[in-house]
Amino acid sequence: MSFEQMWADLASVGRSRSSGGYFRPAFGSAERECHAWFLDQCATRGLETRTDGNGNTVAWWRPEGTGDQPGVLTGSHLDSVPDGGAYDGPLGVMSALAAIDRLRERGVAPSRPIGVAAFAEEEGSRFGLACLGSRLATGQLDPATARELRDRDGVPLPDAMAAAGLAPDLGDTSLLDGVGWFVELHVEQGRGLVDLAAPIGVASGIWPHGRYRFDFTGEANHAGTTVMDDRHDPMLSCAMTVLAANKQARLGGQRATFGRFEVTPNSTNAVPSRVTAWLDARCEDDATLAALVAEVSRLGRERAARDGTGLEVTAESVSPAVAFDPDLAARLAGDHAGPDWPVLATQAGHDAGILAGAGIPTAMLFVRNPTGISHAPAEHAEVADCLAGVDALADSLERLAG
Amino acid sequence: MSFEQMWADLASVGRSRSSGGYFRPAFGSAERECHAWFLDQCATRGLETRTDGNGNTVAWWRPEGTGDQPGVLTGSHLDSVPDGGAYDGPLGVMSALAAIDRLRERGVAPSRPIGVAAFAEEEGSRFGLACLGSRLATGQLDPATARELRDRDGVPLPDAMAAAGLAPDLGDTSLLDGVGWFVELHVEQGRGLVDLAAPIGVASGIWPHGRYRFDFTGEANHAGTTVMDDRHDPMLSCAMTVLAANKQARLGGQRATFGRFEVTPNSTNAVPSRVTAWLDARCEDDATLAALVAEVSRLGRERAARDGTGLEVTAESVSPAVAFDPDLAARLAGDHAGPDWPVLATQAGHDAGILAGAGIPTAMLFVRNPTGISHAPAEHAEVADCLAGVDALADSLERLAG
Repeated sequence: MSFEQMWADLASVGRSRSSGGYFRPAFGSAERECHAWFLDQCATRGLETRTDGNGNTVAWWRPEGTGDQPGVLTGSHLDSVPDGGAYDGPLGVMSALAAIDRLRERGVAPSRPIGVAAFAEEEGSRFGLACLGSRLATGQLDPATARELRDRDGVPLPDAMAAAGLAPDLGDTSLLDGVGWFVELHVEQGRGLVDLAAPIGVASGIWPHGRYRFDFTGEANHAGTTVMDDRHDPMLSCAMTVLAANKQARLGGQRATFGRFEVTPNSTNAVPSRVTAWLDARCEDDATLAALVAEVSRLGRERAARDGTGLEVTAESVSPAVAFDPDLAARLAGDHAGPDWPVLATQAGHDAGILAGAGIPTAMLFVRNPTGISHAPAEHAEVADCLAGVDALADSLERLAG
Repeated sequence: MSFEQMWADLASVGRSRSSGGYFRPAFGSAERECHAWFLDQCATRGLETRTDGNGNTVAWWRPEGTGDQPGVLTGSHLDSVPDGGAYDGPLGVMSALAAIDRLRERGVAPSRPIGVAAFAEEEGSRFGLACLGSRLATGQLDPATARELRDRDGVPLPDAMAAAGLAPDLGDTSLLDGVGWFVELHVEQGRGLVDLAAPIGVASGIWPHGRYRFDFTGEANHAGTTVMDDRHDPMLSCAMTVLAANKQARLGGQRATFGRFEVTPNSTNAVPSRVTAWLDARCEDDATLAALVAEVSRLGRERAARDGTGLEVTAESVSPAVAFDPDLAARLAGDHAGPDWPVLATQAGHDAGILAGAGIPTAMLFVRNPTGISHAPAEHAEVADCLAGVDALADSLERLAG
């Protein structure tokens, strides 16, 4: 089955008719439909498939005589942010399947097993913790913490998995046994490759980033009868903090975003009692990230003191800087190393960063994104660039496992 | 049944165990339980009860020989804002029932019918339009508009009413036929009576107020990879507008509140594509209200132009200033007129304002609120003040209908 046919298979799954964006939260019906399709594609190709207790799946192509060799893993994830694009995740999974097809067409007889992974809850959109599946599979997240995670409707992670027909065994670290290398292909999420006029790039590393919950607490009251001076309105403290975060990130060339809000009671005619907002912050190094978050927190507390409100800041997840293995990147680029496959850093988190953090030699390939837009319905990659990505991945796998 | 017993009956209905606040949205199970209790209390007292096609109920005490006389209506509403207080609404309904008991104990034989009303969706918390029931019953809201109203889950008003066992006939204006006067008792929602050391007050009027939907539109994008200068982030425009509204209201001695937010897609790692926020604004006169909203809108648009975002402002409801009938207020105060029952304006909307707008001579009694807090779990009135309110209402009814 061609890449284009695979793409058409999933084009309508979980897609909003109004926005054109995708709603594929982890373990929800749309993501499960993608996952069932993935299992079917693996079966068609005779791959040896296993799903672990964290909801991650790996499908191995084990040509005869490769059984004991450490394997080369590729793949990505199938979940999306709410109203996200079609490419972030699925492009890496489909390209992996198409690359195996390409190697077989070429008559390549790999000397090592080649695996395709679909990691669970990479976006963290449902349970608030990005790369949840890969963190658990590499032992980088306490299973007890994972068991307590709940989605916005209060559904615990194990219940959501069970409702999707999975047998949760959080903290199962058996799935990546025998993985010698990991190569993740992903749509670029900025305009780096457009500016360099290159369809394919190689990642140097991932900026450190974190998610921080800002809980602003005040006093609920009547929006009409409460004079302005008597209020303890957490919305004001939050609004000033949103603007302060933007300013600090702009000044320092970093990234800071408040994209998620929960207001209590969220009633037009009541001063809120609580506003919770999540800061997504990313910086070029760990010290700068810590300093940015500290400064935004300080400015928020300063304003809260003036408003008579409270502010508590909780780091929900912090991912340190990742530097991918430069030797591996050079090895998989082969003749393409240099301006043909330019080397770029990314500000986006990926399962590749988690596997690198677990000591697995890891690399990433990027496919050009003509607008740089991502996590939005307009996320895009041209078909020709996607096919170039399949070839690049096939070439890389051949160099590592051929 | 005493006032205290009635109060105990409803104390736990729709109450949150964690916050202590009440969740009684219109036509929801908790409000329906209160309504069923109300019907039962009316039946116990031999009142003649009718519910109209808008979900409003009036129960009449028609002593012999009063049939043709215009009646005196009292009462309030049973719905609450989310996480609201126990007093806003139910205090007026219970005090009305208790006042009828008081008149009967006194052996008063009214010369006019006395009615008790429970109006539907006074808060507008579910369908976004305050005083929905009284607006429909007085012909001040187009039934076609009401039929299109939906709650946050997309449930249309007629369906919500039908699900509550009602027979919707929106725009039915028969219920208030024969009402000659309306007197609404309500917990005060500010600190006017505390400052005047008076348990009971009389309303002079209601400030004009309105609800305005601010739709800020931008461009969804990845929170990590999108450089700050490339963003069109509606959250920034909204945050600045929240602060501007607060400042304008403080400068002018008015009220402006942004207490409700909806963020799309509301994801930690995405720049939002849309932020909708609702402005609740209230001013001492109609011209000042229009000027305040125009200025906040102007400042919001100015910021939106700098952010590369859009802003549309929609007035969802605007209630003009209400001046209650001063002669009626003097008549029901009787000997208490003057410092004993001080006269106060209120910034809160009430069904009394709607009935006054329909040309029905209307008055309001306030019961002291020791903290001034309202629309919040801490909303309170002392039992002694509540009982003083029952006596004041009984006295007022006796003067109007005795």
